[in-house]
Amino acid sequence: MPAKIISGKQIAADIRLELKDEVSELRKNDIFPKLVVVLVGNNPASESYVKGKIRAAEEIGMESVLIRYADTISEDELLSKVNDLNKDESVHGILVQLPLPKQISEQRVIEAIAAEKDVDGFHPESVGRMVTGLETFLSCTPAGIMQLLKRSDVSLQGKHAVVVGRSNIVGKPISLLLLQADATVTICHSKTVDLASITKQADVLIAAVGRAEMITKDHVKPGAVVIDVGVNRTDAGLVGDVKFDEVSEIASAITPVPGGVGPMTITMLMANTIESAKRHAG
Amino acid sequence: MPAKIISGKQIAADIRLELKDEVSELRKNDIFPKLVVVLVGNNPASESYVKGKIRAAEEIGMESVLIRYADTISEDELLSKVNDLNKDESVHGILVQLPLPKQISEQRVIEAIAAEKDVDGFHPESVGRMVTGLETFLSCTPAGIMQLLKRSDVSLQGKHAVVVGRSNIVGKPISLLLLQADATVTICHSKTVDLASITKQADVLIAAVGRAEMITKDHVKPGAVVIDVGVNRTDAGLVGDVKFDEVSEIASAITPVPGGVGPMTITMLMANTIESAKRHAG
Repeated sequence: MPAKIISGKQIAADIRLELKDEVSELRKNDIFPKLVVVLVGNNPASESYVKGKIRAAEEIGMESVLIRYADTISEDELLSKVNDLNKDESVHGILVQLPLPKQISEQRVIEAIAAEKDVDGFHPESVGRMVTGLETFLSCTPAGIMQLLKRSDVSLQGKHAVVVGRSNIVGKPISLLLLQADATVTICHSKTVDLASITKQADVLIAAVGRAEMITKDHVKPGAVVIDVGVNRTDAGLVGDVKFDEVSEIASAITPVPGGVGPMTITMLMANTIESAKRHAG
Repeated sequence: MPAKIISGKQIAADIRLELKDEVSELRKNDIFPKLVVVLVGNNPASESYVKGKIRAAEEIGMESVLIRYADTISEDELLSKVNDLNKDESVHGILVQLPLPKQISEQRVIEAIAAEKDVDGFHPESVGRMVTGLETFLSCTPAGIMQLLKRSDVSLQGKHAVVVGRSNIVGKPISLLLLQADATVTICHSKTVDLASITKQADVLIAAVGRAEMITKDHVKPGAVVIDVGVNRTDAGLVGDVKFDEVSEIASAITPVPGGVGPMTITMLMANTIESAKRHAG
């Protein structure tokens, strides 16, 4: 029986409707959630990501501001702008689109953003608070995956979740969130020996490697839930880390690419910004 | 063939000798590493831990100061003291012994300690920096385990490490450090189903649960390296989380309790304080 398709597009749309209602309620109480996106240079992928974020903010009726700089901006100038935004009471979320030009330390910029406006969840303090289970902003892709699982009624307690990939923005944080949801969690990566013998144990398999269609049916236990975080541009178009055609034949549920995890990431950014506005007002 | 015993006592003694030399070199350059331990109340276990820390500092020729408060101290008073210590240029490491009396939020105290003096590695920023692989102070027990493995020539790359226990001070951080060392890592806990089927896959098994002798030979693959972080007081005396007698018959190497992980924890605290003094001077 072919797998149920977990439509991130649909779930994201549902959440955005909820967020739209929430924003309109907040506005009645004179709370106006506001996201500022800083874009340096004109990398086409970054342009497209930023456009998606601004559009999503508009869609839910939230204010957003795009600040653009030429790619010759100095680190000092950028840090000073971040500092101003930190102090600006009307701003609830600050996002500096990565990557940044080479004269600028991305880590220094990430750490310059005030933790209480770090809606991307990349600041070390945000990461540390997430790890220890304290209130914080969860980074958007892992938070989006958790929402996909929750809203698809995938139970996690006592299940074996296997995460392939150990990046700071997906692999590590999603592993810790799955752990908090009481799954037994295994983290695999490029140095893992006999990957299939491990991934085949997964009740829930998260592929976050960034290698086109590397997870085949030989890696998947029949009945598993498969979440594909990969976005790989190939000659055949955009594909995930999972060989969708064959894996969808044996999985019980699977996310497509595109239309799976992608739409959730931006949606979680909106949710974080609204949450920030509420905390700030509260 | 019975397992090789990994003597934390011996390895800790070796490291302390190295640290002693390092302190004496630093003193020649007018750098005097200094640790301040704050003890509130007189919990007997805390008294004993603190005594061990002060003694270790003495042993390696490092200055240490013990500040004691009655358990009636207010949170404000304690936070104000931490703040003074943060500003005191002569202090390189600050440790507030836990647990604290109930009128004081431990989390607030942990977060009040300046990250650059957080030699316990408990501050969310320290945790987040550890997760993302940035320079920081590693919390002492997981750092001690990594030293035990390293100095016993246990290779980790591509090995399957299984951690039983998901506490903030041991289970989670040691999982992330093993991952950084290129192991495939599985984290188990009280909700894990069929624990033995998972632990039996471990090339390296870390037991950090706090339940006397719960890991038996039925949980261990012959030839595995077993690290026992448990310290359980029973009628039969101090025992670990591992049933030492039977597991040591099949493991290739194992830490005893006491004399395994325990002595390493305090040693890593000393190493962190010396590192802090060096960073501060550098």
